[in-house]
Amino acid sequence: MDIAALRSANPDHWKKATAIRALTLDAVHAANSGHSGAPMGMADVATVLFEKHLKFDASAPQWPDRDRFILSAGHGSMLVYSLLYLTGSPGMTLDQIKNFRQWGSITAGHPENFLHDGIETTTGPLGQGISNSVGFAIAEEALRARFGKKLVDHYTYVMAGDGCLMEGVSQEAIGLAGRLGLGKLIVLWDNNNITIDGTVELADRTDQVKRFRASGWQVLECDGHDPEAIDAALTKAKTGRRPTMIACKTHIALGHAAQDTSKGHGALTDPDQLKAAKDAYGWSGGPFEVPADVKSAWEAIGTRGAADHAAWSARLSEQSERRQAEFSRVMAGDVPKSLPSRIRALKKQISEEQPKVATRKSSEMVLDVVNPIMGETIGGSADLSGSNNTKSKDMTVFDEGNRKGRYIHYGIREHGMAAAMNGMALHGGIKPYGGTFMCFTDYARPAMRLAALMKVPTVFVMTHDSIGLGEDGPTHQPVEHLAISRSTPNTLVFRPCDTVETAESWELALSSKSTPSVLSLTRQGLPTLRTEHKQRNLTAQGAYVLADADGKRQALLMATGSEVEIAMKARDLLQAEGIGTRVVSMPCWELFEEQDEAYRRKVLPGGPVRVAVEAAIRFGWDRWLYGERGKREKSGFIGMHGFGASAPADVLYEKFGITPEAVAEKAKSLL
Amino acid sequence: MDIAALRSANPDHWKKATAIRALTLDAVHAANSGHSGAPMGMADVATVLFEKHLKFDASAPQWPDRDRFILSAGHGSMLVYSLLYLTGSPGMTLDQIKNFRQWGSITAGHPENFLHDGIETTTGPLGQGISNSVGFAIAEEALRARFGKKLVDHYTYVMAGDGCLMEGVSQEAIGLAGRLGLGKLIVLWDNNNITIDGTVELADRTDQVKRFRASGWQVLECDGHDPEAIDAALTKAKTGRRPTMIACKTHIALGHAAQDTSKGHGALTDPDQLKAAKDAYGWSGGPFEVPADVKSAWEAIGTRGAADHAAWSARLSEQSERRQAEFSRVMAGDVPKSLPSRIRALKKQISEEQPKVATRKSSEMVLDVVNPIMGETIGGSADLSGSNNTKSKDMTVFDEGNRKGRYIHYGIREHGMAAAMNGMALHGGIKPYGGTFMCFTDYARPAMRLAALMKVPTVFVMTHDSIGLGEDGPTHQPVEHLAISRSTPNTLVFRPCDTVETAESWELALSSKSTPSVLSLTRQGLPTLRTEHKQRNLTAQGAYVLADADGKRQALLMATGSEVEIAMKARDLLQAEGIGTRVVSMPCWELFEEQDEAYRRKVLPGGPVRVAVEAAIRFGWDRWLYGERGKREKSGFIGMHGFGASAPADVLYEKFGITPEAVAEKAKSLL
Repeated sequence: MDIAALRSANPDHWKKATAIRALTLDAVHAANSGHSGAPMGMADVATVLFEKHLKFDASAPQWPDRDRFILSAGHGSMLVYSLLYLTGSPGMTLDQIKNFRQWGSITAGHPENFLHDGIETTTGPLGQGISNSVGFAIAEEALRARFGKKLVDHYTYVMAGDGCLMEGVSQEAIGLAGRLGLGKLIVLWDNNNITIDGTVELADRTDQVKRFRASGWQVLECDGHDPEAIDAALTKAKTGRRPTMIACKTHIALGHAAQDTSKGHGALTDPDQLKAAKDAYGWSGGPFEVPADVKSAWEAIGTRGAADHAAWSARLSEQSERRQAEFSRVMAGDVPKSLPSRIRALKKQISEEQPKVATRKSSEMVLDVVNPIMGETIGGSADLSGSNNTKSKDMTVFDEGNRKGRYIHYGIREHGMAAAMNGMALHGGIKPYGGTFMCFTDYARPAMRLAALMKVPTVFVMTHDSIGLGEDGPTHQPVEHLAISRSTPNTLVFRPCDTVETAESWELALSSKSTPSVLSLTRQGLPTLRTEHKQRNLTAQGAYVLADADGKRQALLMATGSEVEIAMKARDLLQAEGIGTRVVSMPCWELFEEQDEAYRRKVLPGGPVRVAVEAAIRFGWDRWLYGERGKREKSGFIGMHGFGASAPADVLYEKFGITPEAVAEKAKSLL
Repeated sequence: MDIAALRSANPDHWKKATAIRALTLDAVHAANSGHSGAPMGMADVATVLFEKHLKFDASAPQWPDRDRFILSAGHGSMLVYSLLYLTGSPGMTLDQIKNFRQWGSITAGHPENFLHDGIETTTGPLGQGISNSVGFAIAEEALRARFGKKLVDHYTYVMAGDGCLMEGVSQEAIGLAGRLGLGKLIVLWDNNNITIDGTVELADRTDQVKRFRASGWQVLECDGHDPEAIDAALTKAKTGRRPTMIACKTHIALGHAAQDTSKGHGALTDPDQLKAAKDAYGWSGGPFEVPADVKSAWEAIGTRGAADHAAWSARLSEQSERRQAEFSRVMAGDVPKSLPSRIRALKKQISEEQPKVATRKSSEMVLDVVNPIMGETIGGSADLSGSNNTKSKDMTVFDEGNRKGRYIHYGIREHGMAAAMNGMALHGGIKPYGGTFMCFTDYARPAMRLAALMKVPTVFVMTHDSIGLGEDGPTHQPVEHLAISRSTPNTLVFRPCDTVETAESWELALSSKSTPSVLSLTRQGLPTLRTEHKQRNLTAQGAYVLADADGKRQALLMATGSEVEIAMKARDLLQAEGIGTRVVSMPCWELFEEQDEAYRRKVLPGGPVRVAVEAAIRFGWDRWLYGERGKREKSGFIGMHGFGASAPADVLYEKFGITPEAVAEKAKSLL
């Protein structure tokens, strides 16, 4: 590249863009790690986007109607931090930039949404940002349909690199966005032809222009270092009803000795090369120094949206009080005041009627109560709507012609669904939930982890949660997926035993504001075990005594979900032999772990022999089998010891020895 | 569809194809579950493929040079079972067909490779089969380059549905296959426009023809019920150097009342509709009855390849004995006889030189020893070659121009890589290994589970395995991924503490024939702790005493990987205070679990206080902390309690309290 020509062509633009490059070089140099090349390559595109297109007010990063800017290529985090610092985002100080990648700073190696309000989503695992963005764009369409253009009318801009586009999840996102006609989604592809191992050519020859067009996108191309071309492309991108991908031809690590090489992807720390690059840029001054005129120009960009913001606030205040309150409520993620009473009413009804249904069906019964009073829910399924029971009676399909629809056919795209749901939750104003089979937690897993890390309350409705799935066999029968979900920090894993516990689990999942939930639900029918109505949400304590011992307490049975019925039947067998037996239902280990030790010991007292029963592997159960402290309790486990098999569910339970008789025998053998 | 016209156009073909449809209808009816539509829709394509193109000898399903047939849409398993039964595959009896989806049968709900030799791979989780097939095709190219066309020269045929194509993993596979120019890979797309929720249109409008072409595939189209058109397309597919996708326009559940509907996807069990469909087919006779002439015609197809097979055997016997032995060895998955001695020599050298290196670097040192003597290894990385250290000195890149290359740049496609590796392992003759960051176990997870279920010894090289990764922060720092891998049945999870243990782990991983391995390796340097050379592979027992107590044994420290060094330093601190301390290195829990209780109790005796240290969450450790039986040992855990953070590695260890001092304090607090 002829840097001198770029400098002279548009000096004002050049200085602003170079501020990003210089800050990036300095921060990476100070940290002695990081990724220089992407911010240096995309600085021009970002500058034009922020200067001329992005609707934002730097002083108010949480303004609900701001355009969203998502850096899918999260390793280029210095691009985001530079932009936030330059435009004057509160808290993004120069000291933070100087402490890039250090303990306690908000300028982490990859952008973390929970560290700064101006960061829309956590990126780094490639493909996630572009897939979240589909959710952001869905949320915008849905909220615009609900609250009107006066309150909701913004774009979602995404920067994605080759790494993002090679990931399968982005391909799911591309297909979904094309299908849903998300015209306000604009992807800026950092087309620099470089990955870590070398040129893109090493691993891929896909024609991305054709690939996006094949899924119904508008595709534009521009020189990613020509501000006028970038501006023209962005202007065009905002027209039409299709999502747009702009292929921005860029040079990674522009102007540095490592330009256009894979070395340029990483940390450029050589001081001489750094100086040479700055010299070429015409950038003098010490490390982290931004000339006052350049900083002011950027700050003016940061305040450009203040008038828009004020006008929006005025429009909001013109709405009826009720509408304002509803808008504020959903944006804050609060549940409606009536939710607890509706859930209680359902619980009461269930404990009286005592239906025998699968908990996936129970879940549908809850949704039929919840969705009509929570206009902010958006449900969906990865092509298993009839199996996951995720579509409540009142829901219509979200589509180009029906943006008020609240049900999404995600297609056979578990990962894309999960990532899109995270995007909706991050956007605010939406409570997303979506279903697939529990076993396909595997497919959705990277996005499920990010929900936990990002502290967003996405709800994953995972049905067919054990060998109880039956004939489909071991590929579809989870055995380790409870352990996988439970081992993930900041995740609530609910495995309800009946409709009442399912209602309680949903109440907790919907009320959560910073923790995702996994609902592990059965395919097979289960009796109502909570036949005595309790106002209180017993699931909120994670575990509780479902049936206490009749007579001296000699055995203690612990179970979750479909195996609570088995534990209750085992209790009958044991009590018939005069062995006093307590049954503890443990629908949510994480919430039980949060209780104080006194409660935990009350529920699981020392003394009686313990048997846990769960149609899954033992991994993790030892925490509860061995007792809180003191002597080790005599204990045993009834469950799976490997993968399942293809056969009817009742045959599998019998063959794998997960039966009331086996539980009772195990308890007796320990006495 | 005009079924009568199809019948009359080509009666011989029609009868053969209808045998598949009739068996499918009968088996699903008998099981009262399953998927009828796909086998009924793809019966014509399958018939032409088997009759005119597929090179196979039904009596010898393991003939190494057979064409591979992979049903990626695994729910249509009755297609495979019908074909195996009709062509006379040993063991696939009519009784098996009658016991479709029942306990103990080999006709599981989804095809399971470990139940019958004629099933090439386990499918069901969508997108896996087509992604495996890329590995099958790579294996064929690599083996052909190594052993010549006389021994290796076959095609890989895949049937994939819309569900497969919507999954992200298939998109990764499409990109990879296009890039590698796998001309002998032929995908038959069951283009029936139906998914479980309804028409494909509900969730996708991707033009698949354009999408495949964008990644460099040859794309053909045909009427999937016209045998001549299918034959012509297959003939054409075998020309050229690019992979081919044939879009076969089909009708799901052809000829049934549920044809062309989503209902047709599932179990068609209504007896009247079943009879009506058979009547339309012109198919009389009772359930499971195939007219003798039709069965003979199919059996003739099954023996069509016998002459080819015999000729192949003759060509094999003409090879030198050494070459025959080598071919047999690699196809059997046996390691070379010299492997153990090479590993021992490396261990000896290391224990003398005592390098301080990251275990990812140790792994490279092992590969530099192993790869030159194991021509069957194919390594690679998902665009992290320099970080995963997976490319040994002798390896060149596998490419269109260099089929002898044994290193693959998979691109940023962890999932596609894992699935392709499984395909290579399933093909036979190849020992695949591939690298990414441990945290991206998440992306590869569905294929990693299938490796375990399918009993293939794929090796997953997972580097940067803890907060020791440092500045990249929590998105890149695994904390739950050891638990995830350990909770998966039939998986060996190795977390070596130094180069010696890394060599031992690799020896075990390479020697495994039916269990995949996860190698959890550090980014950061570690000292050599195994400074006393032992001939024996100590890692083979899973855990062992690395350093025993000096004096009375009061404390027992357990650790893996990078934390063994911390445990050893804690031991120094404790011993300095006169507290006799044993350190147990536990590089592989699964192998330790396999030892007899006597050995386990010898390594972890009751009495001393126990402290486990691992830079990961505690989940799963209770198994070892509480003791084998009897009284509960006093114990504690030093490790992570949530997600990590972005900072230099040493700062993170300090801030998260994973230090020798913390371990020693914990032990003392328990005494």
